[in-house]
Formats: sequence, C-alpha cells, structure tokens
Amino acid sequence: MPILQRMLLRIEYDGTPFVGWQSQENGNSIQHELEVAAAKLTTQATAIQGAGRTDAGVHAIGQAAHLDVPSNYTTHSVMMGLNSYLETSPISILSAEKVNAEFNARFDAIERRYLYRIFTRNVRPSLNKFRVWHITKQLDIEAMRSAARHLVGTHDFTSFRASQCQAKSPIRTMQSIEIEKVGYEIHIKAIARSFLHNQMRNITGSLVEVGKGRWQSEKIKEIREAKDRQAAGPAAPPHGLYLTDVIYPDKASPTSS
Amino acid sequence: MPILQRMLLRIEYDGTPFVGWQSQENGNSIQHELEVAAAKLTTQATAIQGAGRTDAGVHAIGQAAHLDVPSNYTTHSVMMGLNSYLETSPISILSAEKVNAEFNARFDAIERRYLYRIFTRNVRPSLNKFRVWHITKQLDIEAMRSAARHLVGTHDFTSFRASQCQAKSPIRTMQSIEIEKVGYEIHIKAIARSFLHNQMRNITGSLVEVGKGRWQSEKIKEIREAKDRQAAGPAAPPHGLYLTDVIYPDKASPTSS
Repeated sequence: MPILQRMLLRIEYDGTPFVGWQSQENGNSIQHELEVAAAKLTTQATAIQGAGRTDAGVHAIGQAAHLDVPSNYTTHSVMMGLNSYLETSPISILSAEKVNAEFNARFDAIERRYLYRIFTRNVRPSLNKFRVWHITKQLDIEAMRSAARHLVGTHDFTSFRASQCQAKSPIRTMQSIEIEKVGYEIHIKAIARSFLHNQMRNITGSLVEVGKGRWQSEKIKEIREAKDRQAAGPAAPPHGLYLTDVIYPDKASPTSS
Repeated sequence: MPILQRMLLRIEYDGTPFVGWQSQENGNSIQHELEVAAAKLTTQATAIQGAGRTDAGVHAIGQAAHLDVPSNYTTHSVMMGLNSYLETSPISILSAEKVNAEFNARFDAIERRYLYRIFTRNVRPSLNKFRVWHITKQLDIEAMRSAARHLVGTHDFTSFRASQCQAKSPIRTMQSIEIEKVGYEIHIKAIARSFLHNQMRNITGSLVEVGKGRWQSEKIKEIREAKDRQAAGPAAPPHGLYLTDVIYPDKASPTSS
C-alpha cells in the first residue's frame, strides 16, 4: 500500500439523472460515479465521503467531499484525472486541496449553504425546466421574508424534517434565510451548520404558501411550534434546490461569493 | 372556412433536441412541433411563419412567429391551448397578440437581437452544458470589444456568412455589439435588422480568437475586408446562442429589458 494523502474536493453537478448523492441499491448516485472515477485514478477501491447528502434531482455548485489518494499525486492531477474519467457525467471537480489525514468533509463542515430557485411566470420555463420550481402565481416576497424570520435561530425543526430523517436531534441553528427577486426568479438562500433531511425543501414549500397568500406569516411560527410534520406545507420539488457551498475553518471556498 | 385572425406569438425554446427552427426532411423541428400543436388547436392545417430560422441546438427566449386562427379565438385561449398541446416539448408560448392580416413575422421585423454566452472556467460546466460555449482560457474582453467595433455599421459580411446562406445580399447593418462579463460568463449581444446564416456564430468564433490573443483586434477588419469565409475563425457552437428578441414597429416585446 502506498502512503496516502487526503484531499478535499469541491464538486458541481446536475442532479437530474441521479438517485441523489448517496449510493443506493437501485440507480446511479453521484457518490458512486465519483468512486468509480477515483478507483480508476488510484487503481484501487477508494471511498468518497461527501459533506451533504443531496436528494435525487437536487443540484450542487459547491458540494464538498474527501478521498485518499497516493501521496505522490498532485492536486492538479487529481482534479484533471477525475474530470477526465467523469467526462460523460454531469459532474465536475472544481478543485482539489490537500488536507490532513483526520479531515472529514462531513463532520468538519461549520456551515452549509443552500439556494432554492423559484420561477414565477404564467408560462412554464422551457430552458430551465429541471433547474427551478415553476409557480404560475406571483408571490408576496415581503410576507415570505416576515415568515422566514420565524425560522432563523436555534429551534426544534421537527415540523420541517422528513419522516425518514436519521438525525438524532431535530434541533438546528439557522444562521440566516435571505429571499430576493432576480428577474422572474425568487431565490431563497439559507445558511446553517447542518440541515435536517428535506429541511430546505419543507421550509421552501411552507414559505411559498405564505407567498401565495394562503397563510399569514405568523402561521410559520405556529407550524414550527407544533413540532409536527403534518402541520407544514408540501415539500418543494428537488429540482429547484442547489447545495452552493460548504465552509470549513481556515479554508477558502472556490464558490463563495 | 371560418373567418381567420392573424396572431403574433412570442416563443421560448430549448433548441437542444431539435434540428432547428425550420421543418426539414429528417428530424424534428420547432416549427413542426408548433404546426402540429396549432393544427390540434384550430382543427385544421395551420402554417407557422417564424422571424428567425435558428439552427439545430440554438435556443430562443424571444422568437416571434405568426399564424392564423379562427377569429373567435381569444389571445389567451391561443396561448394556453398551444402550451397545453406543447406540454411535453421544451417550447413555451409566452404571449399571443392580434395583428392585421398582412402582418408577417419574418418580413416586418425591424430588429433581431441575439445573445451568445461563453463560459470561461478551467473546468467544464455540469449544469449549463447545453447552454453555453465552454472555453478553458480566460479571454481579453477589451481586445474583443475593440475587434467588435469593426463589425458595427453597414458592411459586406461575406467573411462571416455560411457557405449555404441563401440571402441575396451579404450586406447587413449591425446596429450594435456589446460584450460584457457576467460571473464566469462573457455575453456577446448583437442587434441588427437581419442576420446572415451563421453570422452570429462566425462573428463570435472570430472574436474569441482575438480574446485568446491569437489575433490582434485589427485582424477582424482585415477578415471583413477579405470577403472570404476562409479568412474568418471557426464558427462558435450553436448551443451558446440565443435569439432573445424580435422588434416590430409599434409593438411591445415581452422579453425586452
């Protein structure tokens, strides 16, 4: 066995054709595609550990993951080599960086950033069909912003987690939720150390109910306090969601703006 | 035969799966898809005439076309009906507007606007693979702007037209070419009453040669004056090109910014 060097990858992908980040019994996962490419690169079985387990259809412009490669490999050769083996996949390695052997892409992350793109137009989008959630109604952004304030801070997010969520605690600290209008789109940007399963999609779904005027902003507080998944609105679809960045102490991120 | 009303459509499409705008012997065209939908809507054969004959892979966010429908149809019912029949196609009717019986979407246009999107990053794009032209090198935008000035105004564009171009005259008047940096992308926006076949892609291909530093800006003037297709650079690929708008006298455009 050669001496190994751990590396941190930053990864962009189109989630459309995948069953999600994590390897599963059925269907092709991003993790699996990466592990196949890494095995070709290192000529041995190589595990890849990701920072965020994105669902089927969810995209990433700044996913992070670590893997171990022979210590004589350069960061450039790892990035170029993996991209070469991934040429037919909608997965791109944006950068590779040497990290110490104890570094863990999942557990060392101090911040994860997500973007949800809503497209509000009377007519469906042709060019961004699998990139945004299409809603024909105009949404009241100010009401959505008021509602989102009830979700910032440390709370029990039981009402906004998937029933199959495996996290031990439903308590999470939402650092910020920003909502802005960009042309026909509404962008919801959320930052937290970690998210519960489906938390971002469930929050978005409920904020859209507020934006449509079906719910008052204060209803979001009631839903949160109910600690009951049935209280919240339907989850937003996966194809509008993007993992945009993962932050580690003392590391620059190539996708942070 | 019922009395007919001519209508002007504004159309968005993803050009990826099509042989182009125009109906051809082999493969599926946008015009054909629209004519099939229009025949279902009007229950009779209905011709659709477009303003711009975009090539295979070229997109539109503001294509224009006209068709005749029974005069009791409302603009809303035409838009909604066509969108309904086009549900499985990446084609969206953005609006329908009543026009007089002599109106012609192709010949009455006084301005066509195109956008070419270049994506400059060392790593290929995963999410915008069929939406931009990927170039790994950084481009010198100032040099490209200087070069573009030689293409504004009334000129013989023989060097920038496709060999199969059917236009009688190679003389065109380019009203403006603007080049701007938008994140990782470089956007080339051109406005003219009409364009020659492949003119925008050929111009873009040559401007990129300048941006890469292979050619001086003045070379574009020499190429133009050579009136020889062989003098220009390779054509830029179709999937970075968008027909963004078509302007008619006294008509508002839904996609103009």
